[in-house]
This record gives sequence, structure tokens and C-alpha cells, in this order.
Amino acid sequence: MKIKYVYEFLEGKKEMKSLLGGKGANLAEMTNLGIPVPPGFTITTEACSLYYSNNEKLPKEIHEEVFEKLKILESKMKLKFGDSSNPLLVSVRSGAAFSMPGMMDTILNLGLNDKVVEGLIKKTNNERFARDVYRRFIQMFSNVVLGIHSNEFEKILENIKQTKGVEFDLELNEKDLREVCGKYKQLVKLKTKKDFPEDPKEQLKLSIDAVFRSWNNDRAKLYRKLNNINNLLGTAVNVQSMVFGNLGETSGTGVCFTRNPATGENYFYGEFLMNAQGEDVVAGIRTPQKLEKLKEINPDVYNELNEIRRNLESHYKDMQDMEFTIQEGKLFLLQTRSGKRTAAAAVKIAVDMVKEGLISKEEALLRVDPNSLDQLLHKQFDPIAKSKLKSVARGLPASPGAAVGQIVFDAEKANLWKEEGKKVILVRSETSPEDLMGMNASQGILTSTGGMTSHAAVVARGMGKCCITSCSDLVINEKESYMIINKKKIVEGDYISLDGSTGEVYLDKIPTIDPELSGDFAELMSWADSFRMLRVRTNADTPKDAAVAVKFGAEGIGLCRTEHMFFEGDRIKAMREMILSETLEERKKALDKLLPYQKKDFKGLFEVMNGKPVTIRLLDPPLHEFLPKEELEIKDLAKELKISVEKIKERIVSLHEQNPMLGHRGCRLGITYPEITEMQTKAIIEAALEVKKEKNINIIPEIMIPLVGGPNEFKHQKELVKKIADEIIKNSKTSLKYLIGTMIEVPRGALTADKIAKEAEFFSFGTNDLTQMTLGFSRDDVSKFVPKYLEAGIIDKDPFQSLDQTGVGILIEMAVQKGRMTRDNLKLGICGEHGGEPSSIDFCHRTGLDYVSCSPYRVPIARLAAAQAAINNN
Amino acid sequence: MKIKYVYEFLEGKKEMKSLLGGKGANLAEMTNLGIPVPPGFTITTEACSLYYSNNEKLPKEIHEEVFEKLKILESKMKLKFGDSSNPLLVSVRSGAAFSMPGMMDTILNLGLNDKVVEGLIKKTNNERFARDVYRRFIQMFSNVVLGIHSNEFEKILENIKQTKGVEFDLELNEKDLREVCGKYKQLVKLKTKKDFPEDPKEQLKLSIDAVFRSWNNDRAKLYRKLNNINNLLGTAVNVQSMVFGNLGETSGTGVCFTRNPATGENYFYGEFLMNAQGEDVVAGIRTPQKLEKLKEINPDVYNELNEIRRNLESHYKDMQDMEFTIQEGKLFLLQTRSGKRTAAAAVKIAVDMVKEGLISKEEALLRVDPNSLDQLLHKQFDPIAKSKLKSVARGLPASPGAAVGQIVFDAEKANLWKEEGKKVILVRSETSPEDLMGMNASQGILTSTGGMTSHAAVVARGMGKCCITSCSDLVINEKESYMIINKKKIVEGDYISLDGSTGEVYLDKIPTIDPELSGDFAELMSWADSFRMLRVRTNADTPKDAAVAVKFGAEGIGLCRTEHMFFEGDRIKAMREMILSETLEERKKALDKLLPYQKKDFKGLFEVMNGKPVTIRLLDPPLHEFLPKEELEIKDLAKELKISVEKIKERIVSLHEQNPMLGHRGCRLGITYPEITEMQTKAIIEAALEVKKEKNINIIPEIMIPLVGGPNEFKHQKELVKKIADEIIKNSKTSLKYLIGTMIEVPRGALTADKIAKEAEFFSFGTNDLTQMTLGFSRDDVSKFVPKYLEAGIIDKDPFQSLDQTGVGILIEMAVQKGRMTRDNLKLGICGEHGGEPSSIDFCHRTGLDYVSCSPYRVPIARLAAAQAAINNN
Repeated sequence: MKIKYVYEFLEGKKEMKSLLGGKGANLAEMTNLGIPVPPGFTITTEACSLYYSNNEKLPKEIHEEVFEKLKILESKMKLKFGDSSNPLLVSVRSGAAFSMPGMMDTILNLGLNDKVVEGLIKKTNNERFARDVYRRFIQMFSNVVLGIHSNEFEKILENIKQTKGVEFDLELNEKDLREVCGKYKQLVKLKTKKDFPEDPKEQLKLSIDAVFRSWNNDRAKLYRKLNNINNLLGTAVNVQSMVFGNLGETSGTGVCFTRNPATGENYFYGEFLMNAQGEDVVAGIRTPQKLEKLKEINPDVYNELNEIRRNLESHYKDMQDMEFTIQEGKLFLLQTRSGKRTAAAAVKIAVDMVKEGLISKEEALLRVDPNSLDQLLHKQFDPIAKSKLKSVARGLPASPGAAVGQIVFDAEKANLWKEEGKKVILVRSETSPEDLMGMNASQGILTSTGGMTSHAAVVARGMGKCCITSCSDLVINEKESYMIINKKKIVEGDYISLDGSTGEVYLDKIPTIDPELSGDFAELMSWADSFRMLRVRTNADTPKDAAVAVKFGAEGIGLCRTEHMFFEGDRIKAMREMILSETLEERKKALDKLLPYQKKDFKGLFEVMNGKPVTIRLLDPPLHEFLPKEELEIKDLAKELKISVEKIKERIVSLHEQNPMLGHRGCRLGITYPEITEMQTKAIIEAALEVKKEKNINIIPEIMIPLVGGPNEFKHQKELVKKIADEIIKNSKTSLKYLIGTMIEVPRGALTADKIAKEAEFFSFGTNDLTQMTLGFSRDDVSKFVPKYLEAGIIDKDPFQSLDQTGVGILIEMAVQKGRMTRDNLKLGICGEHGGEPSSIDFCHRTGLDYVSCSPYRVPIARLAAAQAAINNN
Repeated sequence: MKIKYVYEFLEGKKEMKSLLGGKGANLAEMTNLGIPVPPGFTITTEACSLYYSNNEKLPKEIHEEVFEKLKILESKMKLKFGDSSNPLLVSVRSGAAFSMPGMMDTILNLGLNDKVVEGLIKKTNNERFARDVYRRFIQMFSNVVLGIHSNEFEKILENIKQTKGVEFDLELNEKDLREVCGKYKQLVKLKTKKDFPEDPKEQLKLSIDAVFRSWNNDRAKLYRKLNNINNLLGTAVNVQSMVFGNLGETSGTGVCFTRNPATGENYFYGEFLMNAQGEDVVAGIRTPQKLEKLKEINPDVYNELNEIRRNLESHYKDMQDMEFTIQEGKLFLLQTRSGKRTAAAAVKIAVDMVKEGLISKEEALLRVDPNSLDQLLHKQFDPIAKSKLKSVARGLPASPGAAVGQIVFDAEKANLWKEEGKKVILVRSETSPEDLMGMNASQGILTSTGGMTSHAAVVARGMGKCCITSCSDLVINEKESYMIINKKKIVEGDYISLDGSTGEVYLDKIPTIDPELSGDFAELMSWADSFRMLRVRTNADTPKDAAVAVKFGAEGIGLCRTEHMFFEGDRIKAMREMILSETLEERKKALDKLLPYQKKDFKGLFEVMNGKPVTIRLLDPPLHEFLPKEELEIKDLAKELKISVEKIKERIVSLHEQNPMLGHRGCRLGITYPEITEMQTKAIIEAALEVKKEKNINIIPEIMIPLVGGPNEFKHQKELVKKIADEIIKNSKTSLKYLIGTMIEVPRGALTADKIAKEAEFFSFGTNDLTQMTLGFSRDDVSKFVPKYLEAGIIDKDPFQSLDQTGVGILIEMAVQKGRMTRDNLKLGICGEHGGEPSSIDFCHRTGLDYVSCSPYRVPIARLAAAQAAINNN
């Protein structure tokens, strides 16, 4: 059977996204729903894939298929492509299965040449319109297809406006625009050494190629990488008959959302411009009007649009983002898609839709991207501090949140400064797709033009970054890196604060506070809790962190890193004294000094956790990490401990390791210096007993032996812990239950899990180290090759962010299977940073772990991701 | 059923070694063969295990069982234990399943007290003998059981000899010896605050305890560790009626071997002393006579002994090491066991016994310890250089080989100097078990006393170390660390050379040469080759090494490390230039300089290998390994390359890695710098083509991509290699087959072996790195905890020496299974250092690898080990 590469809109449906792309599938769906959509057809993503496998050329057969469909389109529209009296103009747009707004190319008004434009003039009886359309086409085609920078065309336009003494494009008349078109074509000839292609069919073929080519432009690739969009065939191409929003004052174009994408509130939200083409709204060149205004200008069209809004939402059961054009009073829909939204909006919409009976709780839970919750959890400005300050400017609250940082006016610099550890705010007249990396590097984004649906706004919401757009109080000089607000000059490096929820700009560093977790949020989380099978614990070393995590719903501590307790004040002194000890007696003396600190810390943790399980890992890092590195520090230490500088340096040298990651650390410390394990056990058990006695809190401490590679290491430490613990408990004349388990973080630990489980009561997968050793990637050194690996597609994702399921995952599955084979009630968890990453959590669910443990701020993310895992794998 | 803990000799047999120990089982076997053995019984190793699990106490029931057997012994001997007229004396000796000569304790002449000795006097009518036996007993018992140092008793003896004005013990009369006994008992009272135990039953119980206790003394533990003796229950204890070699001039004692243990020659070989107890021979205090002498002294006894020799050898089908005592002209055998022998002797005996029809070829192959072959392969003195020199002293050639080094007189210092990288020769009057570590650290051992069966001789042969004993030309002052030979003073640190095959000592550093591989050796190797299934390749980077390996029987190169080629002369310059390049062009220019060197090296290898397979690994180590470290070197390099010192230092800093083992190396280099892979591929393929053209040698180069963790890395490099290789081959207008495969050395590589095997034509297990990553042990850093791990029994063996079969082995098995599932003709090998270690080779055989690859000198070891693996796993 011959493969079909081109589909009329009538032939498609929304389920055909992967073949027709999102835009194509939805245009087809709308067409079939009877919604007014300008007719057209879609060239499939399979054609794109063929284009690439065929040396970046489309086979002739596909061109033939395109022209067949074009014929059908002509007869449907009763127009003729390339005809000089009754011409059909088309748009050529990209559209992949996942929306990649602004990343790929579009050509509008295609089908014009010097002859056809005369036909358009005659037909519309509007020469100015026709010339303007022609001008736009030449510019767009030359830019997208021929690769000539838009600036070059803008310069020509500016020159003519100056000559004519006018300010706006609209002030140019048909004669002026004809001159513009002439100069444009001269530029093309100059740049390409060829005439501008006059044959509309050739224009169409070249445009289709260009759209396919744009699938692999740098910014599209970057976008896919940032958004983890993999394994797509390519983009589809939509060829659609043109409708014109710029045919005069009864025409217009706009973008609207079925609900507010920033807050989620259920009202019809959008922006439009009369007498404009769609690009004018999105590009943020003119500031558009609110959708409510349309009700006044053309209530019939508004009502029709509102009706379509209701239809589409109840049909798609999701908030939609629609594009429309009004051509001489007649409404056309050009696009509908699932609308991007802030995390707050996502939560509110999901919860509301359940209450409206539109979707189930499961669907609601799947609607919210767990990672996006981060936006809701992070800080807001301290209202008291803020109330004392006066904002200096106000723009549109395009993406909520609070951002404080140093101003940069350049996306590249934003990147550079970020790498230097600075917090930056990117300030631009308007952003463009080239700014993507810089936006990602910034705390927040501030623009002087553009609306709520401008590039900056859409992208920032997607990134969960605070963003204020259309802040017209700013006068920005990007070239010289300064801006003026109220006559005040603000230069690169100055601090500002942005309130993305109100649109206010402050020339101060405003303190921030923890967010209030809203009612919708709490409700969604409670649904998540009812569906998820995984428990969610937190990695916390201090009572403060633990308290935050409990507030976010943590059900226990999965990892308390005891070494973090040794770095403060007097503790580090005692720690260093211990390390510098030459005899067992000296070492024990120093450890005795550390004991009360450890005990106090553990008591604090136990009190906060109030009976929830607490897993405490014994000392893990190599001892050299605790010694000073700077000459001055060494001298101070020598003086304090009354030993020679030489002795300290000797010890530093003797502790030096070639590969500390694989060195003398973890349980290897506890085995060579059993007195360390003894002291820590003492601190844990005494703390638990005292908290029990003093506060009547029953804690079951889970003592975790790190870096175990086999049963013998574990047994060695377990016996030591048991001896000390049981003795203390016996002397206390009360009872205390405690568990002894291990981290599985050395590949050999996973391989021998059956034997380790004979002794160990729980496993916690330390996936950070397990990733390092299984892949042979030193986390501190991978920056030298991992970027290249990502770029070359050798790896999909950074394995330190997202668990390497096909490598490390195999070891984890083995360990789970082997461990449970030996001990069927073995408690299993994960405490690497992957414990807070949704795709890794899905893996943990499938693998049958009991819990994940993550940093406090990721606890809600883990709760939602765990619910999604349970629903998706049901 | 009641467990039986004590066996009469008549109740045992040689197969009961693990229960009765080697000595006990063989005494039983001899008893049942009708060989004259003094009757006795054996307390089992299970009793020893019980002793330890029972808090180092033997349960009463076992004591009762002992005294029951003692009763039987009394009636058999018609003597009575502890009787003052007709007393039974016994020896109490250790004996584990594996021989541990001199490591555990023995008590002779037990059953004496002040009353019993009178009975012995009456019965033997030889008061001097009885008093001497009593003296020996008190000294030995007090030392072994009560822990009083022998020196203290020797001092008393010396004092009395001085008072009496005599030189030798034998010159003391019965009265003197009675005085000695009295003073000995006073010493015991002084030291223990208790009287010497007079009750013979108490003596027996205490002695049995002491022998069991000696199982875990430090030197026994060390011996087991050095000899990889694991998983034994403990030692057995043999209680045997005493026979006396010191009952006068018709009595005597000796040690003999059924064949010469140094050369393997088939003649009766041994030493004896008349009027002596066994300890006198072994301890090397008096220099014994050669066995031939016995023929003259007592031809009947000699013939009887020779008859027993023949019986035992044909019964055991192995060379035996026997102990005998002659009591007043009557012969008794006290022990037989498989005799320790040099590697040369082992080979000769094995081959001879096959020819004599005594054993099969399979048995012969199993008789030789593959590791011991090392002795035969290593250097001997250059005979020409040696012929020009005159030896300064001559001793007994106790263990063959050639050793050159600096003299030390102290075992601990031998250790220390070895750790400093020095080669040392340990010179002692005589060695004792405390010297074990120092002997192990030395190149060779030289003693002034002791015979061929002295401690030094036996241990050195076991270790395969060159040893000369009984070199009476030396006057050694151990305390002041010097010795005199021929009036010449030789001090610590001076160089000497020892020829262990002739017993000659030289005051020079004599050059050494490669060994001749003897006919027996070649024959045994040919048998090995006919049995083994594994092929044996070598790890070689130079034509010279490759040639040595081929001489030793290598069937190909399993690993050529190309980086080793970059360190010499001009090459390192070009390499550094490459690393310091800032642009691709500069880097390519520097690589072009390296290309001819690489090509030349490969041609050399291909020529030597003459059609045998050659596996070449692409560049593996991190680039910083090639940069200079010293300030001066950096300055020179800067001058040479005409760049600034700062630039070089910057590059060194930028290349620095926290964990280079897990860093930017292996295929990660080839992926980030594809031009390196390109240059190396070019060198390999061009070399193969040129060798084909010039010498008509058909080489199938096997190109190995290192450090692959998954299919994508491999694919990336494979495509690059194929592109370059196919282009060169095409241009050459001839044909060339080549393979592309990978090292499996990252755990993830093993886990994804099924996917990698889709692309890779061979796997070679790089077990060095695989061990590092699977265990999380940095080879360079493990010295900080691995000794402790070995000591605490957490690991049995150093995993870098002997493959960790229960950890790393699981990954290898997985990779083999997964790899072969995808590609059933996948070629599989191992090229880590484990490829030359017998137990690891056994694993490789069982796992179904095609070949092992090891360093040239280990090739014969691998051939034999592979044959043993095939036989043992048949």
C-alpha cells in the first residue's frame, strides 16, 4: 500500500497528533466539529522523517501529493493558486506532536508574486492591503527560506519611513509599500545572487523544505532538550488558505484561553488586535486589547467565539489556547491546543474541572506537571518588607513568583553571570527565541513591550519563572546596557526585585518568605496521597529542614547525613582533633567531645519528626574533607591544637586520595576506626531514649551503614552497633526498638543484595553514588564530556538528574528482587537526589520500593509524581 | 547420635583429612598400611571449632573421650600414663587439613613429673636421658602452655654450662640436668606464681588447649593469609606415644623425601641426626647428616625406611615428606605428607610419574601449582658475567633462582625497605616463624645455620624464593647489623647476589638473563595445551614483550595499550602538543606527528605476531597523565612549544579531575576528540595493510573501544572507525578484515551487554577497572583499608589480585549471557590482570570465555591454570 503523506483537514482527527502534529490534528478536529477553520491540508511528520533520511530532500511523489491536495483546496475555496485574478494565498506552518511555540518557522501570505499581487489588488480593491501583504511575504519568505536577517528588511522599511517623515508602518501608503517591495527584492538579489522566486509552486516547495529544516535548528533542538522532548519523527507542515485580519477595521486577529492561564480562574481570557495579522499579536510589537473589548466592537463575533470556547473545552476537557482571525467580520479559528499555564493555574483548573464534573480525580492529578509545583513552593516577597517599599514601575503580571537579582540586558551575559554564581534578572525590550538559554539562566524576566501572550510571557510561564511584560515605564538601551525609569538611570549589575504576581518592579533587594500553600493545592495533594503507593520521606540534616519537609507532607526522614553536623563552630575543631589523633586514646577523647553535639542534633530531629521514622546514616565522607585547605587555616588549627603545622600537613598528605569517591569513606571508616561508629551509635540511641523519656515520643531510629559492598562489611558494623546500642538500652532499663540497614550505593552491594539482606533490615538506594560507580561518571568531573554526550544524543538526560533506568535501574531491580527473596519484609527506599524527580519516582513505583526520599522542597513534587506513577501503572 | 571427637589411629584413613588434619589422617593411613607408627589418637578439628565456639574451653565430654582413648593406648603400649614405674609419655601435636609447618605448637615428652621421671630412670636405666627428657619437657610445656619465653630457660642452661665449664648440652651429666630441672621449676613458679603442674592429666588437658589456641596465633593466621587457606574448622590434635631418638647412639631421628624436593630427581633424599629428638633436626641447631650416611650406620633401618619410601609413594602416588625416629635400633614413622617442592621439582616429578605409569596426565597437570611456574620463568644469573666473578661463600642450595639485593639483618627492616621500593636480601643466623613477613618481602634469604629442611629452606621453597642455608662462612652480628666473610666486613645496605641453585654467594650485583625452559617444562605445557579450552593471549605493547610472550606460548595479543607508545622521546612532545592545542587544526597537526610512530609500533607488533590476532585498545587514560608535573619540566615544555608557562599550567588545572578514574578518559576522549580515534584507526589499518603488502602477513586487527558504558557510545566510535578504516582499505585496492569490539570495564557496560553486542564483535573484560567500579575501590587508595579488610576477614583475597567472583563475577556472567544472547559468536576474553591468576582463570573457564590475556611472564601460568580448570570442571 502506498503511504499517504498529505491529509486534508477533513481526513484527520485529534488522536492523530504523532502523524499530523498537534496543530494539524487539532485543525482537523475543529474542522470535523464544524468550527469555522480555513481549509487546508497537513504534510505528515513521516514526510519530515523521510526528508531527513533522504538527504534533506522531499521525494517527488510527496510534492505531487501536495499539489493534488492544493487542487482540492482551490476548488473548495473557488480560488486559484498563483492566479493573477482570483489568487489563493496560503500559510505554511510547522506543527510537531508536542507544542514548541516559536521554535520552528512559519511563512504567511504565500502564493504572491508581481503578477498575482495585481490580482489581489483587483479582488480586494485594497491596494494598500495587497502591497502590505506582499511586503510581509517577501520579508518572511526571504528570512525563513533564504536566510536573510529580518533586520536588513527592517532597515529598508525604517529608511523609507524616515524619508516619508512617518512613524508607524500604518502611515505608509500603497506607493510607499510598492517601493518597499522593490527594495526588498533588490536586497534578495544582492544577497542571494538570484531573483526572488516568482513561481508560487516553487515558493511552496521551498517553504515546506524550510519548515522541515527548521525542525533541527539550534533553538528547536535546545527547546526539545530543555523540555525533554525525545523520539519524535519530526514536524508536520500545515498548508492552509489565508484569512486576513489586516483587511481593515472590521478585520482582526487574536489569541485567547478558555480560562486564565496565569491564575486558572474560569473566565474567557485573551487579547486581540484589529487590522493586524497574527504575528503582530504574538511578536509583541503592538500592545493588544483585552478580549472583553471585542464584545463592544463586534458582539456577534465575540459570542460566536465564546460559544466555540465552551465547545472546545468540553470537547477536549482541558483548558485551550486558541488563535483566531476575523476577516471582514467573519470569524475563523486558526489553532486550538492545550494551553500552557502556570503551576497555580494548572492546580486550580485541575481541581475546578473535577468539581465541574468535567474530569476525574485521576485525570486531574495527571494534568499537573509535578516539577511545576516548584513554582508554588518557592518564596514570595515578605509582605511587610514589601509594604514599606514603593514600586518604581508596573507591567503585566505575566508569570507569578518573586525574583531578586542583578540586572543584565543581554541573554548571553545572563548565562555567563549565572555560571559565575550570580543571580540575574534579564531585562529586554522583548525576548525572542534566541534568548532561551539566557532566560533559563535568570531568576526573572522583565520586558518593556509585549502582552500576556508574548514570547517572554509564554516561555517564562513554561519555565516557572517570574516574568513581567509590557512594562512601558522602562526606557531600555540594550546596546549601552542601561535603562531609565522615572529619569533614574539603572545600570547593569544593579539589583531589582520583580513581583510576577502583581507586575510590580522594585529597585531594592526585597526579603522573601515561604509560600502559603493554597486550598486547591492542598486538595490536589490530598487526592495524590489517596492514590499513591509510595511513601514520601525527606533528606534532612537539621530540625529546621525537617520541619519544612513535614509541612510539605514528608512522612519521615529517609536520609540524615550526620557529617553535615560536624562542620559548624566548635564541632569542626573536635572533628579535626579526632582526625589528627595519633592514638586510639586521643581519637576517643576527641570523639567524646563530638558526642554531645551529635546527641543534641538527633534529639532535635526526633522531636520535630515526633514518631515518624528517621534514617540516620553513619559518617560517610573521607576524612580529608574535614581538614582545612588554606595555609592560614592550617596555621590557626596548629596553634589551637598545639601541634606543628608540619604534622597537619603530613596528615593532609597522608589522607590525600587519587580517587576519593572510591576511597577511604563510608563503612570503610567505621571498620578502620570502629570508635567512630561507636560514638555515633551512642549518640543516636541515647538521643532516642532521652526523647522518649522527656517528651514521650517513640522513635524507632533506623541506623544506616553507608557504602556497603557485601555482607561482611555490613555484619562487621552491625555487630558493633548492636553491641553498643543493646548495652545502652539495657542500662536505661527501658525498651527501644531500632533498625539497622544499609545504603545500596556500590554496584557490588546491589549484586550481593541477597546476602546483605540476611543481615540488613532495610535498604536505601543511594543513587548518586550508584550512578557514579555504575556509569563510571565522577559527578565532579562529568562537565568535561556530558554536555557533548547530550548534544550527540549518546545520553537523553543527565543521569544525575534523572535516574538511568536502563543501566543503574537494572542494578536496583536486581537488588530489590534479591533482597526481597531473602527477606520478604525488607524495607526499601531511595535517598539519592533522584528520589524527587518524577520519571525516577515512576521507576521506583514500578520497582516496588516502599518510599522515596528527597529534599524538603521536592516533597510535594514527589507526592504528586508518586500518585501519577500509581495511576499510570494501574 | 553422639558426635565422636577422638579417633584412634586405627580408626582413621587418609581421606579423613578435614576431620583428623593432614598429620592425623596420614598417621592413621600408615598405621593401617602396617607401617611402624607409635600408637596414638587424634582429637578432631570439630573439637577445635567447638573449643572456639565454647569460649575457648573444651567441653568435659571431650576430655572424657580423650582419657578413654588414653586408656586404650596404655593397654596397647603396656605402659601407664603418669605411672612412676612404667610410665607412658606422649607427644601432643597440631595438624590441620593443610600443612602449616612450624606455625602451630607441639609438646613432646608429656606425662613427666618429679615422680614419673624416677620411673623413667628405673625403666631406661639411663638417668641422664630421663633428666634431659624431663628438662626438655618442662621447657617446651612452659613455653607453649604457660607462655614463658624459651630464652629464659636457655639462660639457665647457659649459666650452668658456664659454671661447669662445658660448651655443649651433651656434656652436662644427670646431676647437672637435675639442677637445670630444679631451676626451671623455680623460674616457672616465679613467672606464673604457681607450681609447675605435676598432674600428667592436667598437663595433657592444658596442652590440648594450647594447641587449639595456637590455631589462631598471629603467625598461623598470617601463614593462612599468605597461603590463601580459608574455611578450615581448625586444627586437630594428635596424641601419640613417645619414641625416643635420643636414647643413645643407636637412636636417632630424621626427615626424608621420597624424591629430591629441590630438583625432583628420583632418589631418596633426607637428613638425620643420631641421639637427637626431632626438634633438633628441624630447628637447624645442629647440622644434620645426609641420609646416605644412615646406610653405613644402620643398613637394616635404612633398607626398611627405603622400603617404606617405595610403599608410601606408590600408595599416595605423590612425593612424600616423612619424619622418622630410630629408638634403640627400631624404626618408627612419625609423619608422612605430600612433600613441598620447588616448581622445577614439581614439574619434573609430575612428568616423571606419568612416565613411570604412576599417575595420569590430568593428575600430573593438577600436581603443579600454576603460580609456582613463576620460579622457572624468571631470570637466572648471566653465566658469562657470573663466570668472571668469584663467590665469597657457599651454603646449601635450599631454594633455586637468582636474587640480587641490599642486605638487611632484620625481618622488619626487610619489610620497611621493600615498601620504600628497595630490593633486599634477608641475612639471618636462622629464620623463625616471626620472620615470615620479612622473608616474603625479600628477594632472597641467606642463613648461616640450618639444613635443607630448616625453617628458612622450607618456607623459601614454598614462596618460590631463592634461598641459601647453612652458609657457615658467614659470621653474622644481627644486633649491630653487619657480617664478616673472610675477614671482610659487610654492612646493612651492601649489595649481594645469591645463586639459589648452587648455594654460592657473591659480593656483586650480577646481571640476570631469561631462563631456559626445560624439556620437562615444555612437555607438561604441551599436555596443558591439549586439555585446556581457553586460549591464552598476552597483554603486550611492544614487539619485545610480544616476542617474549610468544616464546611462552601466547596465541595472540589480548590487549595492546596504545598510550604506552606515547611516552618515549619525541612522542611525548607531540602528545603534549596535541593536548595543549587550542583548535581542532592545531590538534590535528600534532596528531599527524604521532601517526608515523603509532603506525611503526603497530607494524612491529603485527610482524612479531605473524598472523595471530592482535587486539588494540584506543587511547584510554585521561590526558592530564601525559602532561609534566614538575616545574622544571613545565618550563622546558613551554620553551619547546613556544607557549607560556602560564598556559601550560592553566591547561593542567583545567584538566585536573577530582576522580580521574571516573573522569574524562576511555571512549569519552574519542567522543569529545574524534580526531584522536581517527588518527589511531588510520595507524592501525595502514600498518596492517603495509605488513600485508611487505611481509605477506595477514593480520585481522581487533580494534577495541575502551570504557564503553552503553550502546550509544560504542556506536559513535564504531561509525567513526568504520568510516576511516573502510576508506583507507578502499583506497588501498586490497582487502582487509578487521573487528571492532569493546572492553567491558564499566558496570553499566555489563548491564547493557545485550545492546552493546548488537554492535560489538567482541568483548574483553577489563577486570581492573570493573573491580574498581563494582567495588568502589580505587586501586591507588585501597591500601588505607584493604589490609584491615583482609585482617578482619571481610574479604578473603585482594580483589585486584584474584577476581571477586561473587561480586564482579556476577556482572561478568550477566554480560556473557546477555552478549551471547544477542550475538552467539561474540568473541569473549579477559584482559585485566586477573587473566593470569589461576582461580580467576578457573572462573573464566566456567563462564565460557574464549580466551584469557595476561602479562608475558604469566602466559605459562595461564596455560596450566586453563588446563586445570578444564580438568577440574569436567
